[in-house]
Amino acid sequence: MAKDKKLVEAITSMDVDFAQWYTDVVKKAELCDYASVKGCMVIKPDGYAIWENIQHELDRRFKETGVQNVYMPMFIPESLLQKEKDHVEGFAPEVAWVTHGGLEPLQERMCVRPTSETLFCDFYAKDIHSYRDLPKLYNQWCSVVRWEKTTRPFLRSREFLWQEGHTAHATAEEAEERTIQMLNLYADFCEEVLAMPVIRGQKTDKEKFAGAEATYTIEALMHDGKALQSGTSHNFGDGFAKAFDIQYAAKDNSLQYVHQTSWGMTTRLIGAIIMVHGDNNGLVLPPRIAPTQVVIVPIQQKREGVLDKAFEIRDVLSNFKVKVDDSDKSPGWKFSESEMRGIPVRVEIGPKDIENNQAVLVRRDTHEKLTVSLDNIAEEVGKLLDTIQKDMLERARAHRDAHTYVATDFDEFVKTINEKPGFVKAMWCGCQECEDKIKEVTAATSRCMPFAQEQLSDKCVCCGKPAKKMVYWGRAY
Amino acid sequence: MAKDKKLVEAITSMDVDFAQWYTDVVKKAELCDYASVKGCMVIKPDGYAIWENIQHELDRRFKETGVQNVYMPMFIPESLLQKEKDHVEGFAPEVAWVTHGGLEPLQERMCVRPTSETLFCDFYAKDIHSYRDLPKLYNQWCSVVRWEKTTRPFLRSREFLWQEGHTAHATAEEAEERTIQMLNLYADFCEEVLAMPVIRGQKTDKEKFAGAEATYTIEALMHDGKALQSGTSHNFGDGFAKAFDIQYAAKDNSLQYVHQTSWGMTTRLIGAIIMVHGDNNGLVLPPRIAPTQVVIVPIQQKREGVLDKAFEIRDVLSNFKVKVDDSDKSPGWKFSESEMRGIPVRVEIGPKDIENNQAVLVRRDTHEKLTVSLDNIAEEVGKLLDTIQKDMLERARAHRDAHTYVATDFDEFVKTINEKPGFVKAMWCGCQECEDKIKEVTAATSRCMPFAQEQLSDKCVCCGKPAKKMVYWGRAY
Repeated sequence: MAKDKKLVEAITSMDVDFAQWYTDVVKKAELCDYASVKGCMVIKPDGYAIWENIQHELDRRFKETGVQNVYMPMFIPESLLQKEKDHVEGFAPEVAWVTHGGLEPLQERMCVRPTSETLFCDFYAKDIHSYRDLPKLYNQWCSVVRWEKTTRPFLRSREFLWQEGHTAHATAEEAEERTIQMLNLYADFCEEVLAMPVIRGQKTDKEKFAGAEATYTIEALMHDGKALQSGTSHNFGDGFAKAFDIQYAAKDNSLQYVHQTSWGMTTRLIGAIIMVHGDNNGLVLPPRIAPTQVVIVPIQQKREGVLDKAFEIRDVLSNFKVKVDDSDKSPGWKFSESEMRGIPVRVEIGPKDIENNQAVLVRRDTHEKLTVSLDNIAEEVGKLLDTIQKDMLERARAHRDAHTYVATDFDEFVKTINEKPGFVKAMWCGCQECEDKIKEVTAATSRCMPFAQEQLSDKCVCCGKPAKKMVYWGRAY
Repeated sequence: MAKDKKLVEAITSMDVDFAQWYTDVVKKAELCDYASVKGCMVIKPDGYAIWENIQHELDRRFKETGVQNVYMPMFIPESLLQKEKDHVEGFAPEVAWVTHGGLEPLQERMCVRPTSETLFCDFYAKDIHSYRDLPKLYNQWCSVVRWEKTTRPFLRSREFLWQEGHTAHATAEEAEERTIQMLNLYADFCEEVLAMPVIRGQKTDKEKFAGAEATYTIEALMHDGKALQSGTSHNFGDGFAKAFDIQYAAKDNSLQYVHQTSWGMTTRLIGAIIMVHGDNNGLVLPPRIAPTQVVIVPIQQKREGVLDKAFEIRDVLSNFKVKVDDSDKSPGWKFSESEMRGIPVRVEIGPKDIENNQAVLVRRDTHEKLTVSLDNIAEEVGKLLDTIQKDMLERARAHRDAHTYVATDFDEFVKTINEKPGFVKAMWCGCQECEDKIKEVTAATSRCMPFAQEQLSDKCVCCGKPAKKMVYWGRAY
């Protein structure tokens, strides 16, 4: 039994050292590994399978709204990157530069895309002529590179996988509508599929995307009380269109600039899943995103009929993503391993269960056990997976709400940030000076101005001047 | 009517200039466009949708054989690339080099992956310890960069999309078995899904992959009689394992080197589909890979009931990938456009058809028309799509066979290559000198030593010495 526990014991407790717990889970659940290139990662089969599920579900939702997938080159010539002033200032310090092709130096160096606004704009300038060509609703799945100084698997790596949507519209209204539509799509996806509640809101000017008129964000709260920006949607207005000269002939034959948006989600979401749902036994995956939803562990598998029955149950459960663990490890080891990997439901089946025509279902999220008849096991497993999905969202929401505080003056604000990890809701005057001061004193940043505004007080929590917006503040990944 | 023909007339006839015809089809069918970076391409929605279908079907077949997807970094440190001698010699001259990260020069430059053997080996060296860890059956979907001098959309571009499988096995036999298994998987996919017959065989030493012990290939014949290498599968033996020190503890506790394979298919396949099936009206897509299988064109669509009926038919055909073209273009224009895009079946429905409870089905591949009752249109369309898929394969096979020649002496060989575009089957002594001479004189290369060997003569077609192998020769893309 001691040996069986080894796997679990190898994880640092999250209460002792959350950062180390996170790294342990990433490694022990075999989601990813470090690569030879500093700050880059190898995404292993179990990590990549989660990403494939995210892709599949997001892609389906995108396409339902008329989005089409395309692929742009991974290189951006330096002159192209420089066309939009704010954008190049935001990204140039953190791109990787290609200077040689084969044995020859390049005439103009190129960066590996940190994001592809410039490439899409360059393409749209050639491809959009008339109002008939609008809207363009393009998306691509690819990897991008940002040469970060400090990196952490999934959360901040020099190369990461993502999708980036880039749309062009005839009017400002349509662009704004699409920006909000995609933010809501992201939020619904996080809540319905990842069981992760999010705050929907707008970034302050200080925190918005380089080149955007407005950036909208969804913010989630991790188990340690830190915030994680989980998806963003930007409205560019006609700023890029003017920089890249993207014009179309309107119905009245006048030339008009298009209005653009972009929106993205990344492999960072895998980090979010770990930090929202994980526990001291490892990963806990919501059923709708789990590569394996059900693992069947035979007990005394060498006894005649046990393995046969396990495979029989697998066939009965074939509507789910199900596996039999028939390896030669001990059941205890298998239990630990399936917990570490976060498999939502474990089915235990042994000689006694077979005799009684039953099996034991064990929930990963609560460790609860449930004995069910083999006659209706498929139905029971289906119900249980639904319950787990629902409960995980509710639990995460309750945790988030219990760690969301209100502060109405600066002392209270500082005290709360320092003593109670979580979101702090507080009023703000709208000045960057107050954001800067708050960041300097507390290391917290404005996460967003939520769509659901509340009037907590009339005064800015920092300077006391008249308040304009309620803001969610927090320390963030 | 003249105006309706414009789209089609814009294509160069394939008999006049095949290369120009190809470029015209790529552009007019809106598969891809040129990018700001020379030699790179923008894959547009219709091109990318074909790639997604290829991915979907290949990925399903891979997973059925136990393959798992992963993701490796896109960068390779120079020292890592240099670990296997033949490999670095093969690839170093054509890689793109990253020398700066952000504002700082890198301590060691990195190339953008031209292929990822070195990264997988580096990972396997850390990840494989015991025979229990074997086999590793990993694959990744990504883009790679090869700094080619002359480029053509899909066929040869500096960046292209592909999958690369990398496996590690306990024994040489198992590695060879996997190499052949994947080659056959590729060949079956080409024939069953792309309706593209291929020759399965082995590359000569001169033509094999840099670092491989044996390279297997599938070779297809394009409409102009040139060959296209459409997929390759490599057996590395333990060469990479020795260079990267990838050892495992066998059951008897001895340390053994693993045996490895790799195999890949690329967006080049889209070029193959165009050049095998296309005609002077544009693209012709096999139903199983077509993003749209059926387009419904309403005739006199402003007449009451016509559009309603078109959408009603769409609903009846919802098992297929079906679209209604209800744009304000003329029916003639819509016909041309659906032909240009290669949509396998067109359904024409007008007031007279409705009166007679019928519709007209038009095959893209043969232009044949078929009047069917609306009562069983779904069944008829299903049958027609199957027939088209089958006929396209047979037609391509007949074309290939009609353009496959035999040469038994050098004069005949040269004359055939020069006068009859296609494959030439001829015997070969096994010496690279003869391959070099044939290439120099005719620009033809050995495409493969087919698994299906024939004894055409006893003598090498080039030097007259005793023949060892029958080889397919041809000029190639």
